[in-house]
Amino acid sequence: MAEFALIDRLRQRATATVLARGDVALGIGDDAALLDPPKGRQLALAVDTLVEGVHFPKGVPASAIGWKALAVNLSDLAAMGAEPAAALLALTLPSDDAGFVDEFAAGFSALADTHRVALVGGDTTRGPLAVSVTVVGYVPKGDALTRSGAAADDDLWITGTLGDAAGALALWKAGTPMLRTGSLRERLDRPSPRLGAGCALRGLATACIDVSDGFLADLGHLLAMSGVGADIDVDTLPVSAALLDAFPDLSTRRALQLSGGDDYELCFTAPAKKREAVLAALDAAATPVARVGRITVGASLRLFDLDGLPVALPPRRGYVHFSGETA
Amino acid sequence: MAEFALIDRLRQRATATVLARGDVALGIGDDAALLDPPKGRQLALAVDTLVEGVHFPKGVPASAIGWKALAVNLSDLAAMGAEPAAALLALTLPSDDAGFVDEFAAGFSALADTHRVALVGGDTTRGPLAVSVTVVGYVPKGDALTRSGAAADDDLWITGTLGDAAGALALWKAGTPMLRTGSLRERLDRPSPRLGAGCALRGLATACIDVSDGFLADLGHLLAMSGVGADIDVDTLPVSAALLDAFPDLSTRRALQLSGGDDYELCFTAPAKKREAVLAALDAAATPVARVGRITVGASLRLFDLDGLPVALPPRRGYVHFSGETA
Repeated sequence: MAEFALIDRLRQRATATVLARGDVALGIGDDAALLDPPKGRQLALAVDTLVEGVHFPKGVPASAIGWKALAVNLSDLAAMGAEPAAALLALTLPSDDAGFVDEFAAGFSALADTHRVALVGGDTTRGPLAVSVTVVGYVPKGDALTRSGAAADDDLWITGTLGDAAGALALWKAGTPMLRTGSLRERLDRPSPRLGAGCALRGLATACIDVSDGFLADLGHLLAMSGVGADIDVDTLPVSAALLDAFPDLSTRRALQLSGGDDYELCFTAPAKKREAVLAALDAAATPVARVGRITVGASLRLFDLDGLPVALPPRRGYVHFSGETA
Repeated sequence: MAEFALIDRLRQRATATVLARGDVALGIGDDAALLDPPKGRQLALAVDTLVEGVHFPKGVPASAIGWKALAVNLSDLAAMGAEPAAALLALTLPSDDAGFVDEFAAGFSALADTHRVALVGGDTTRGPLAVSVTVVGYVPKGDALTRSGAAADDDLWITGTLGDAAGALALWKAGTPMLRTGSLRERLDRPSPRLGAGCALRGLATACIDVSDGFLADLGHLLAMSGVGADIDVDTLPVSAALLDAFPDLSTRRALQLSGGDDYELCFTAPAKKREAVLAALDAAATPVARVGRITVGASLRLFDLDGLPVALPPRRGYVHFSGETA
C-alpha cells in the first residue's frame, strides 16, 4: 500500500460531502486544499491526537478509532458554538492493513457525513498507531462561546449524562462481557459531539467547555479562565439508566461522573434569567440538559448533596493524557 | 511536566506574532482558536507529519525537528502561492524532556517568527517521537497555484539547487564528520520554504509543486495532474558548490539531484513568453531559479544531456515515506 491509499479511500467517500458543501474550492490531491469561508464568519481551529494505549486501549475496532478521532475534535468546535466545515487527518499506522484502513475510513466518514465535514487534507505515515485530526469550523463573528465569560450567579449546566464512557472503560478493564456494557461502551467508542447544542447556545451561554478530561477537571479550566468559583449539587449531575444499572454503588458512580473522562458533553454557564431560554434552545436542538449548580465569587469549587451538606472533592479530578496518570 | 507545558512555552514565544498579525481573535488556550480571514482570500490548508526514523534519523537536534516540522508545511503553502497565517501543532513525545522541549520550541518559533506564522493550536501526547503540523494560509481568490495547469511548450523551472539534503543524508550515513557536511546538512535540517517565490509566481506559473519526495517523483505528480509530459535537460539542473565539492562523481551527484528528497524547492511551469517576467519576479523575491526543460504533449518524461542525447531515467524516482523504501 502506498502512502496515499488511505487518503484516496477517504477522498472517494468524501466526494459527495465536498460537492454538497460548496465552500471547498480544491480538495485533497494538491499541495494544499482551498476553502472559501462564508462572509462574516470567524474560523474556529482545533487539533487533537489520539494515541493507542494512551487515549484508547488496544483492541478498539478501527471504525471506532476513525469515528472518535473526528468526534473529539468536533466536540471542541461544539464547545465554541461553531459549525464544522473541514477536517485534515494525519494518521500513523504500524503496518499496511487494508482491513483496518477500510474500517477506519468507514468510521471516520460516517461521522463526517453526518455533520457535513469535508476531509480536505491527509497525511499517512508509518509508526505506532496514532491519529491527529485538525478541524476547521465557522462561527458568526463575535458569537463564539469561550471559557472565560462565566459570571457570579450564572447557572451551571451540563448536557446529556456524565460518567458513561468512564464506566464502560472500568467494566472493560474488569473483563465484563461486551453484551453487558453495550450502551455505555457506545459512549466510549463513538461519542456524539454536541454540535447542535453548541450552536443553539450562541447568545445564551456566557462560557462553555467540552468535558473530555472529566467534569471537575474541565469545569476547573472554565472557572480558572473566568476567574470565578462554583457550587455543584452533585445529586443533580445527570446519570444514565445504564450507569445506574451497572454501578449501583453511589460513591463509585459519583466518582465516574465527577472525574471520568471522554464524556464529550458541554459544560456551560448562562445567566439565571436565561433559564427558560436555555431549556427551550436545547429542547429545539434535541439535547438533554441539566442544571447542576451555580457560579460563585472567588475561586472555590464546592460540592453539596441533596440536603445541602458539603461533599468532599475526590482526590483525582481527571485524566492527564500526557503522563498517563490522573491528576 | 503536564500536557500543556510545551504548548505554553510555544504560546509565550508566539505572543508577539499573534498580536502583530491582527487576524488572530483568540489564540491557544480555549477549546479552539478563532481567526478572522481577510476578505477576498481563500484559505489554503495542509498537514504533514514527521516521524523519527522515517522522516528524520535519530540524533537530529530538537531545534531542527521543530524548524523542519513547520518548514515542510510552509513549503506546501509556498507551492500554492499562499502566504502563511497560522499553524496547529500535534506533538508526540516519548518522555518529559525539558531540554528537548525548549530546543524544539526554539526551532519551531524561529521559523514561525520569520514568516509571521501564529501558533494557534497544539496538542501534546506521549508516544514515539512524531510531529504533525497543520498550516493555514491565505491566497487571493482564484490566484492559487495548483499542480494541474501545465500546458505543452511551457518552460519547466526549479528554484534554488537540488540534491543538497539527500547529499547530506548520504554523507551522514557514511559517517562523514559534521564539519565536512556543514552547508549541505543545513539544507537537510533547516530547509527554507520558498514562500516569497510562491507568492511572486501568482499569475505567472501555470502549475507548481514543492519538491519534497525527489525532483522526478514530484515532477511526475505535476505532469500526471496536468496530463502532459516533459523533456528535462539534466545538465541544467541547478547544483550547489557544496554538492559539487562533496560528490565529484557525476552519476552519483545526478542521482541525488533527480531522486533525492527533502529539497523543498519549487518546481513550476510557465509559458515561454513569460520567461523574462519569471526571472524578474524571482529576482525580486531574491530566489535563484533555473530553467531545466519544457512541457510536452503526451505522458512521457525524458531526460537529455548537454549534447541532446537521451539519459536513462534512474530506477528509483523518489522516496515513499510510508513504506520506508524508495519506489
